[in-house]
Amino acid sequence: MTNTVPKVVIVGAGFGGLTVAQSLARLPVEVTVIDRHNFHYFQPLLYQVATAALSPADIAWPIRGILKRQTNTTVLMANVTAIDTEQRLVHAGPVTVPYDYLVLATGATHSYFGHPEWASVAPGLKQIQDATAIRRRILTAFEQAELIEDVEERRGLLTFVVVGGGPTGVEMAGAIAEVAHHALPAEFRRIDPHATRVILIEAGPRLLPTFPEDLSAYAREALERMGVEVMTQARVTHCDERGVDLEESRIEAGTIVWAAGVVASPAAEWIGAERDRAGRVKVSPDLTVPGRPEIFVVGDTAAAADETGRMVPGIAPAAKQMGRYVADVIAARITGRPNLGPFRYRHQGDLATIGRKAAVVRLDHMHLTGFLGWLFWGFAHVYFLIGLRNRAVVALNWFWNYLTYQRGARLIVDGPNAQEAAQTEKTKPLASSVEVRRSSDRNQPSRAGPDWH
Amino acid sequence: MTNTVPKVVIVGAGFGGLTVAQSLARLPVEVTVIDRHNFHYFQPLLYQVATAALSPADIAWPIRGILKRQTNTTVLMANVTAIDTEQRLVHAGPVTVPYDYLVLATGATHSYFGHPEWASVAPGLKQIQDATAIRRRILTAFEQAELIEDVEERRGLLTFVVVGGGPTGVEMAGAIAEVAHHALPAEFRRIDPHATRVILIEAGPRLLPTFPEDLSAYAREALERMGVEVMTQARVTHCDERGVDLEESRIEAGTIVWAAGVVASPAAEWIGAERDRAGRVKVSPDLTVPGRPEIFVVGDTAAAADETGRMVPGIAPAAKQMGRYVADVIAARITGRPNLGPFRYRHQGDLATIGRKAAVVRLDHMHLTGFLGWLFWGFAHVYFLIGLRNRAVVALNWFWNYLTYQRGARLIVDGPNAQEAAQTEKTKPLASSVEVRRSSDRNQPSRAGPDWH
Repeated sequence: MTNTVPKVVIVGAGFGGLTVAQSLARLPVEVTVIDRHNFHYFQPLLYQVATAALSPADIAWPIRGILKRQTNTTVLMANVTAIDTEQRLVHAGPVTVPYDYLVLATGATHSYFGHPEWASVAPGLKQIQDATAIRRRILTAFEQAELIEDVEERRGLLTFVVVGGGPTGVEMAGAIAEVAHHALPAEFRRIDPHATRVILIEAGPRLLPTFPEDLSAYAREALERMGVEVMTQARVTHCDERGVDLEESRIEAGTIVWAAGVVASPAAEWIGAERDRAGRVKVSPDLTVPGRPEIFVVGDTAAAADETGRMVPGIAPAAKQMGRYVADVIAARITGRPNLGPFRYRHQGDLATIGRKAAVVRLDHMHLTGFLGWLFWGFAHVYFLIGLRNRAVVALNWFWNYLTYQRGARLIVDGPNAQEAAQTEKTKPLASSVEVRRSSDRNQPSRAGPDWH
Repeated sequence: MTNTVPKVVIVGAGFGGLTVAQSLARLPVEVTVIDRHNFHYFQPLLYQVATAALSPADIAWPIRGILKRQTNTTVLMANVTAIDTEQRLVHAGPVTVPYDYLVLATGATHSYFGHPEWASVAPGLKQIQDATAIRRRILTAFEQAELIEDVEERRGLLTFVVVGGGPTGVEMAGAIAEVAHHALPAEFRRIDPHATRVILIEAGPRLLPTFPEDLSAYAREALERMGVEVMTQARVTHCDERGVDLEESRIEAGTIVWAAGVVASPAAEWIGAERDRAGRVKVSPDLTVPGRPEIFVVGDTAAAADETGRMVPGIAPAAKQMGRYVADVIAARITGRPNLGPFRYRHQGDLATIGRKAAVVRLDHMHLTGFLGWLFWGFAHVYFLIGLRNRAVVALNWFWNYLTYQRGARLIVDGPNAQEAAQTEKTKPLASSVEVRRSSDRNQPSRAGPDWH
């Protein structure tokens, strides 16, 4: 420990990292928050960006803005490249930041179960740019279907497959069905968006496997009422540009959304720590790395067990609880107070929304479904959103959508292959930035191109 | 003329094309609107997206949504590749659309006066993705400056040059100065955003050359009070990654915004028509192409003169007036009414905003400046925005910005080289999508890469 002000470096400004930073606001420490983005975002509402109900700026806030009054804190937008655990240095782009305490809160990304090549055809939903990429694909599928005449090809374009029946998969399937059946039909002349098929594929025996069985059953019924085809005990064995293979059948689909698995960020590699099968750092009961009491891991990057031995789930409230705990441990150490006990996770409940007026909520002794669940879900989410302005805009947007079935953020602004399109743009200034591609072109690697928002 | 319902094809859904479509709503015609984007956007507020005050979805609306109740109209998102004026066919991606009347309303893009290579270092502001690209550059410049130690390099990053002293240049310079001097200072720890230099360069003798001289003088004073350095009679002779050359000096600047010239879209080439120096189609007094009475050109793509011989300016109200006129001509022809007289342009005034509480307005017999001008400008723009929801969101955002000096849409979500970043993303799932680049890396072609929103 240095004899100057202790330095705390936090890598990642998601729910976990940001909570640590905010909880250290009044302590005599120098905090540095490093994130590769300049914004924090509200991951539970990403699916609303992906389905054009909200804009990215509605669910994201500049990290600097959130922390600007916290004068002991510096924010750096940089990419961590290496960590020197002996010298206690974080290397991030052009800067090297020394630490006395290090908090790794770098989150998780999609897992394709050993098939990374599926990533390009079946994007997941973890980042803002994932959401805008999926939004572009969904909207472009309808636009392409409106242009072409071939019946088979059109049917493929209007088939949407969501892989994974957890909360994200349920929310995506419900939201795509709403867009197709309520928002779009009046706007197309040559196709009938009502003919859209939305297929939700779950490998296990029921949707929402972490929820009680009655809520799983309700979710399935509610989705089916909305026109979603639910397939359980169905395993995807292959994904390509044209659809998915199951064990015994094939579904031709122009759009595939991956909501089936996650894997932790490579933080474990940076510090040479032991990890579990999902890539998470196996932490001690106080969320430190074994043998490295100055390094903490929180949120989806940590494999932490609660006192009963059950793993802490990878959800926002858990990350925030870990963040508060780690800030308390650091406070205790620097003020010489006795050590805290181990981290205790308190599960507050489970929430998943299915669509307009339908959600499932499990609290301690209460299960809510339908309109009541949906209201609870809406209030809970708006309440937890940071920032007055955004809370008002989100509420306004939802209310508007509810009244009109409309989707306000329906812009296709990123091309399937931005690099190529930009070059075209230079020679033909007004050439389309969103090339309307024929289905036959869709095997080009461009399909795997960048989808930035 | 066919003996079935006449077919009107409109290429481009900007102010001109959309007005034609809307004005044909109740006529016995079959309208097809073709645009390479799925949205119409409010170009006069693009600079607010470029400076993070508004989100793209605040100023853009799906074309289908605008026209959905207009049952005689089909919208196609496609890229026009050729027009067969003999067969009267528009080729657009996979579709071929026959027409009886054709309206070309494809707008304009930046002109670099014979230096197309400047486009990559000095982006202009015509499209939504231009705005998000400039937003990314401005915000990333501050982020990079916060990371590096080198004083010279930091000074370059914190210097912003705007080329062109028309309304767009004045608005951009004012808005960048506001961001730098009001929104950001509290959020950075290592740099002082107050030290930002914003330089507005105009080749002519005064800013806003199309405005009366008293308003030009006011604009200059107001900008200077906001800390903008205004240079008139200064001609840019070269642009590169590191700054601009003037005839007798050099300015090192990390960010250059081009607001100096426009050139029409290649519509004239499609139909083999005669064009003026700015690439615009020279139209007859009834806005048709000479020798092609069934082809109309409106908006920035048309070189039209008013009855006094003065050219109609390339502004939104002029495009809308042309649009209404063309719809009337088509209506007269199909209903067998006598021909209308030539197009008459009515100039309603000029508006440019400079910043918080400062704008210049020229109406018929009135010049407004300062707070009054700003209020007028704000009301006029909110009034003209299409769509209740967006009007409310824009008003809310402005009010919020006014109260707090904040910028809500400050997200850096598109990378400097999306293609490359996406590939990195695949191998290192949580690698930064916005690489913090050293200044020394900035000569790579990646700087010229795509900037999609």
